[in-house]
Amino acid sequence: MSDDTATPRRRRSGGREARAAARLHAVAEKVPFITRTLAPFEVLGEEGLSTIEHNADTILEQVGIEFREAPDALELMRGAGCDVEGERVRFPRGLARQLVQATAPREFDQVARNPANTVHIGGNATVFAPAYGSPFVRDIDGGRRYGTIEDFRNFVKLAYMSPYLHHSGGTVCEPVDLPVNKRHYDMVYAHMRYSDRPYMGSVTHPQRAQDTVEMARILFGADAIEAQPHVLSLINANSPLVWDAIMLGAAKAYAEANQAVIMTPFILAGAMSPATAAGAATQTLAEALAGMAYVQLVRPGAPVVFGSFASSMSMQSGAPTFGTPEPALVLYTLAACARRLGVPFRSGGSLTASKVADAQAAYESANTLQPTVLAGVNFVLHAAGWLEGGLTMGYEKFVLDLDQCGQMHPFVKGMDLSPNGQAVDAIVENGPGQHFLGTAHTLANFETAFYRSEIADNNSFEQWELEGSLDAAMRANTVWKRMLAGYEAPPIDEAGDEELREWIERKKASFPDSNV
Amino acid sequence: MSDDTATPRRRRSGGREARAAARLHAVAEKVPFITRTLAPFEVLGEEGLSTIEHNADTILEQVGIEFREAPDALELMRGAGCDVEGERVRFPRGLARQLVQATAPREFDQVARNPANTVHIGGNATVFAPAYGSPFVRDIDGGRRYGTIEDFRNFVKLAYMSPYLHHSGGTVCEPVDLPVNKRHYDMVYAHMRYSDRPYMGSVTHPQRAQDTVEMARILFGADAIEAQPHVLSLINANSPLVWDAIMLGAAKAYAEANQAVIMTPFILAGAMSPATAAGAATQTLAEALAGMAYVQLVRPGAPVVFGSFASSMSMQSGAPTFGTPEPALVLYTLAACARRLGVPFRSGGSLTASKVADAQAAYESANTLQPTVLAGVNFVLHAAGWLEGGLTMGYEKFVLDLDQCGQMHPFVKGMDLSPNGQAVDAIVENGPGQHFLGTAHTLANFETAFYRSEIADNNSFEQWELEGSLDAAMRANTVWKRMLAGYEAPPIDEAGDEELREWIERKKASFPDSNV
Repeated sequence: MSDDTATPRRRRSGGREARAAARLHAVAEKVPFITRTLAPFEVLGEEGLSTIEHNADTILEQVGIEFREAPDALELMRGAGCDVEGERVRFPRGLARQLVQATAPREFDQVARNPANTVHIGGNATVFAPAYGSPFVRDIDGGRRYGTIEDFRNFVKLAYMSPYLHHSGGTVCEPVDLPVNKRHYDMVYAHMRYSDRPYMGSVTHPQRAQDTVEMARILFGADAIEAQPHVLSLINANSPLVWDAIMLGAAKAYAEANQAVIMTPFILAGAMSPATAAGAATQTLAEALAGMAYVQLVRPGAPVVFGSFASSMSMQSGAPTFGTPEPALVLYTLAACARRLGVPFRSGGSLTASKVADAQAAYESANTLQPTVLAGVNFVLHAAGWLEGGLTMGYEKFVLDLDQCGQMHPFVKGMDLSPNGQAVDAIVENGPGQHFLGTAHTLANFETAFYRSEIADNNSFEQWELEGSLDAAMRANTVWKRMLAGYEAPPIDEAGDEELREWIERKKASFPDSNV
Repeated sequence: MSDDTATPRRRRSGGREARAAARLHAVAEKVPFITRTLAPFEVLGEEGLSTIEHNADTILEQVGIEFREAPDALELMRGAGCDVEGERVRFPRGLARQLVQATAPREFDQVARNPANTVHIGGNATVFAPAYGSPFVRDIDGGRRYGTIEDFRNFVKLAYMSPYLHHSGGTVCEPVDLPVNKRHYDMVYAHMRYSDRPYMGSVTHPQRAQDTVEMARILFGADAIEAQPHVLSLINANSPLVWDAIMLGAAKAYAEANQAVIMTPFILAGAMSPATAAGAATQTLAEALAGMAYVQLVRPGAPVVFGSFASSMSMQSGAPTFGTPEPALVLYTLAACARRLGVPFRSGGSLTASKVADAQAAYESANTLQPTVLAGVNFVLHAAGWLEGGLTMGYEKFVLDLDQCGQMHPFVKGMDLSPNGQAVDAIVENGPGQHFLGTAHTLANFETAFYRSEIADNNSFEQWELEGSLDAAMRANTVWKRMLAGYEAPPIDEAGDEELREWIERKKASFPDSNV
């Protein structure tokens, strides 16, 4: 737990690399989240959205949702007016929506250890977080291998260093070298110690969620976390139409402590829902409504996010497919449903089925991230690093995706129509046939005119060849190594850190390791 | 000119390849163009767009546009009420817009040799055409090299075979092995013979435009082309604020013959326009308005397209950059301006500065094609093949981009809200916890539920490794070779073809070869 002190100091890197780093930092305006100014793109109008909502209510009313092995949840739902039969919970038409709208906050802040990094979740804010949940990691040097706690810390550090991610994420990769029943201590601690951004908690067992809350109490203070959410956690449905005991228990632990949860139907359309986009969207809405209603019954007013993970499927092999048109339609539709409901929305990211950071990975990721931003998603998990349908976290892919997240920062600001932006005088003064390279207007806008990519090679073919004919993934390999070499841990209150580490050691010693 | 008879017959390919081809063809519904059903995404409202339009008028009024070495053009502009001083043409406020709106068609058909392939240009139609103008070609086997007429024919054939492009394009690559002053005969003939889709004409000299028109008269008949455009050609401005004699002469040749032209300011923002998005958009609008007004004065009612090519620039090196946020904002803005003006709009494509079909190429291309489609661009040049800022046409990139164009086909249809699409009964009947793989609804939607990529690898890591760990570009290498091997020329009227070839031979023999 003390390897933070072993953090390598900022290496004196070569002139070229140093200049590149300086360039990047000169331009990247660090913001705690991006604020969209453009109206979201929508694929359905009022009538279509009403149809989806009506159908979701039909499902909640006629089929209902199973709350499995969760008698306390069933009790809550019954008390709120649901029709409970065995583990099946049916909602009178409109009830789930009413329960959510009555008390769920429309938007909220997730407080960071560094207050400058506190994120706003909901409204016009969009927050980018790393990919989540991969058992494997990959880089060009080492290929594909199981993730370790060292990889985990590396991704926390890389996310912390990027001006283009806003959140430290959660299970940035599975630290498979640690016992299953104790690795959450090291994961949560890594987020707390190696970053000062907001992070996500453990959900693999209600007790681990409790542990996460306890760790937040130690670091931030019990009063602080009771007053405002400091942890955001990912609760997945067991689609179709099931919430299970572990997820409900973890959600309950967080909601009772006023910490935020994302209630996410995880749907591979064709397998966990019908194969149509409208069917997948409808079922997602029904499941999410039931989950969010449950959270509001656990603790009215607890911050909750409407989550959706929807992928299409290869109808030949049954494998999930990403960056395809149908999930984009689902995403646009559900973002609009979340706005109508009045809760923050989580979806999208930089998803791909590709095994490596190649053209497939990039097309599919861009075709996911574009709808994510245009739809107005509020919390974007999997914004960087995702490969192979989430099985692998890629170092090069992570760096490539950071650049894409970076590009969204100027985009969401829209068109600058200030007098300088309009540039009429510049055009009038310049006149026909004269280039603008040395004009006063160009010189004044030189530094900030265009997004600068650290990864894209825009040089001549000859220059590119001279520099080794590196493709984007190979260039990214250099970048993440340079970033890690230059990592410096954010300052931390030493007493709080020590208390936290002692608490963790005591907890770890109090029960045997286990991999179940 | 007779190598069409040497076209390889469809090769009996192996079982796996044949199955893959059959799969693709079973699903790809061939349409002559795509029809958008979604409202376009806009980044500016009424006020912002009015500002851009007002500023464009200010430029046309105060600075004006140079019409260089084109006395007949100056005469036309003066006659229409412009203030002409030397070669400078100033437009009283609103005049250019009035001239365009008075006679330019809002939308039109470009007739194809095969009437089933006639494209609609304007309105809710979007037409995908190959990349245009590269002196180099690239494939994995041969690397980067100068393009030849064989490469040219290959790309015409590949475009013809794809269900996802709609247009044969123009200079799909420069056939550098042919003399500059005669290569247009072979290029135009290749489009006419090896494809039966609409194509683009020569613009490198007014006489070559005349030749293109003459060839169309031979193949389609003089009456047919007088009645409807059969050729669409790309006329570039010499930004800032200049239209030159060659471009004006070529535009005139086409417009006089009622053939369509795209009047395109080609702007590398920061060099040929101010470095701001609004500045680049404003200048583009001013230049395009002047060019389109000229075309309407040459022949009122001649079909004309508002074109825009806008890239950002590396402010370090001056190199053009693609897929960045700023050109996307320009594109969205100008698409809205074109709608307000009431003319079809050309922009976008699958642009990149990358030298190879890597992640950079794919991110940048997707980040261009997404805005292209969401903005409602009508004619999409450079939809497939573009590499290295347009210097290189890539075989593998071409095939990868085709797949991306394919994905736009279902996307633009939007959400299917038919009862089958809504799938409420399927969800209700299935119930909680049961997968949908074998349900009647899934089986009924099996074939058409999701877009099927021929390039994406969605298999398991183990399967992918077993098949050679190929990245997307390497898989694309197999696909274009298979496509070319299976090419069969569309039928052609033998007499017309012979007349055309004889005419070309006579023309070629009538003046010496030259490379200027």
